[in-house]
Formats: sequence, C-alpha cells, structure tokens
Amino acid sequence: MNKIITIGREFGSGGREFGRRLSEQLGFAYYDQEIISEISKRTSLSEQYIQAVVEHRPSFSFPIHIGRSFYPSVSPAFEQTMSVYQEQARIIAEMAAKSNCVIVGRCADYILRDYRPFRIFVYADMDSKIKRCREKGPEEEKLSEKELKQKISDIDKKRAKYYEFYTGHPWGDKLNFDLCINTTQTVIKELVPAIAKLF
Amino acid sequence: MNKIITIGREFGSGGREFGRRLSEQLGFAYYDQEIISEISKRTSLSEQYIQAVVEHRPSFSFPIHIGRSFYPSVSPAFEQTMSVYQEQARIIAEMAAKSNCVIVGRCADYILRDYRPFRIFVYADMDSKIKRCREKGPEEEKLSEKELKQKISDIDKKRAKYYEFYTGHPWGDKLNFDLCINTTQTVIKELVPAIAKLF
Repeated sequence: MNKIITIGREFGSGGREFGRRLSEQLGFAYYDQEIISEISKRTSLSEQYIQAVVEHRPSFSFPIHIGRSFYPSVSPAFEQTMSVYQEQARIIAEMAAKSNCVIVGRCADYILRDYRPFRIFVYADMDSKIKRCREKGPEEEKLSEKELKQKISDIDKKRAKYYEFYTGHPWGDKLNFDLCINTTQTVIKELVPAIAKLF
Repeated sequence: MNKIITIGREFGSGGREFGRRLSEQLGFAYYDQEIISEISKRTSLSEQYIQAVVEHRPSFSFPIHIGRSFYPSVSPAFEQTMSVYQEQARIIAEMAAKSNCVIVGRCADYILRDYRPFRIFVYADMDSKIKRCREKGPEEEKLSEKELKQKISDIDKKRAKYYEFYTGHPWGDKLNFDLCINTTQTVIKELVPAIAKLF
C-alpha cells in the first residue's frame, strides 16, 4: 500500500511549505492546488469557482413544511457543492492509489481514512502566523495588523466549518492527527529532515 | 544553554517510555521519579506523600468574611503543598541548568519557560491507552475494562486540574507544545530516532 501523508494546517502556519518540502525530501508526489485544477477539468467549472466552493461549507435552504412531514429543499447550489466535494473525494482517492504522496488540506485525512494515512496538523500562534503572512504574501502587505489578524481568523473559521461539515469531527483536534507540529519557533526547512525520517 | 526537552503525557499513552528512550538516544539526562526523590530528601517528607501532593491541585479553604474584606484562610496543608511545589520548581530549574535533559511531567514546560524548552505532549485514544496499561501494569490486570477506563480518566483529570492550577493554561492544549505525538498507532521505539533528529 502506498504511503500517504495528509497535512491539515492553520492559515499562515507554513503547513503548505512544510508539505511541499516534506514531499521533496521523500520523493513523494505532492498534491494541493493540483486537486482544484483536476476537479475543474472534470466538471468544466472554473478553478476560481471550485476554490470558492471547497473553502465553504454548503448552506442548506430552509425545510419546506408539507402536511406533517418535513422535506428539506435542496438547492441547485447545494447539489453542485456536493458534487464538487464528491469529485474531490474521488480524485484524492485516485491520487492516493497511484503513488506515495503528500496531500495538503481538503479533508484528505478523513477521505482517505481507510488507507491509514499519516495525519499531520501544522499550527502556530497568531503573532507567528501574522509574521509569516507578511513575509510570504504580497497581498497581505497592504493590510493593517488588525485586518490581517481578522483575515487569518476568518479563513481558519471557514476551514473549521468546512471540515466539521464533511467529517463530523472538530477541526484541528489533536486526537484526529498522528502528529501536530507547532511552527511558532521553528524554521520549517530545519524541521523536515527529522519528520521525513518517520517514513 | 542546555537543551531541555519537556514531556507532558496522558496516562497510558507511553509518554514516559518515549521520554526515557529519547533521553537514551540523545545521551541526555532523564528526570521523572528522580524529582520526587530529591524533593523528599530536601523536605524530609516521604516520597509517597510528595507523590500524592504533586498529583493533586491544592484545595483552598473557604474565604473568611471579616468586615468588608475577604481574607482567604490558608490551611497548613495548603502551605505545605505550595512549598513542595516551590521545591519542585527549584529542583527542576537546577536540573535544567546542569546538563541537557528530558523531564517528564511536573509542569516542567511551564516552570522552565524562560529556558525555551522543546515541549512535547504525548497522547493516544482511550482503547490504545487501555491496551498499553494492561501490557505494562500488573496492577491494572485485575481491573475490569470499565474500571481501567475510569482510572485513566481520573488520573488525567487530576493532571489537568494540577497543570491548570499551577500554570493557568489548559492541560494538553496543543498551542502550549511544540510537538504533539499521538501514539495510538505507533511503536514508540520506532518513533524515537526520528524525533531525536530534531535535536
């Protein structure tokens, strides 16, 4: 069976960099944005749209009350969201079947639970996430400290809602991971060789 | 400055074994029960007594209301508990100053915060903790599944209360650790060489 490493991460914690470096060190395939591109190809929906969909938990419409029964009305938007999610799950399973790989985000830890992936969660304290965002993102340069903090919180809240909706588990709960890495005081490059030795 | 590794752990997660093996692999000093023995020597209190004290958060007596002010009445038992804790903190600081070391439990991560220790938390799911307890502890053999589960929960609850009382932080919160290791699906012996490579 292929070795699968899944990486959940807080925004600004450097989880993506960690995943990419780990895959390079191990010679494993690396999947992150590639998954979005593949869903886009298969569904003929734009990458931007897919990105927006997979960053939000779908919202139900109000149930319609007919007689004594409740029928939830399922909106076309909800159906499309679910089909994007199903496509994503299918693609992730295909990738896992193909070769050893590192997969970042996208509930891959849950989708691939039958493959027994090694599940890593990368996190950091807020100051360190702000600092990392400022260093990496030209977009973030324009934001004030308060705005950037808000942005980080908002993105993580969305990730949490999305993860909890699809998996039924709280996001970032250490019991759902094999290893949780705090990058607050860490140079990610220096961390990778040790973690790679686990595989 | 010496390299200090502190290890917090859930009961039955194998944290102590992990700490001992890690110290052997690194050639670091290892402190666990040694701290109790040393407090006992310095305070002339029995090791059993010290053990009981450092496993419980001290309880305050009811405050006495005099006039408009509240004076908490401090019992001799409370004072003794606090002096044991202070002695423990002093000994842990001395150990950290002496050489590279691994220290298991005893709020060492908090006591040594100015030394910037590498803080590890070891945990596992309940089934795996029960299994580990059964394998390791002859005492636990006599307990039913339910009793053993209760024992594990009780010990961890005590640890949580103790940690939270002395540090003001929630016990086992991943943000207070650099690395959280789930030993549920892990052979500890195989984990140690990789983690040792971090140092």
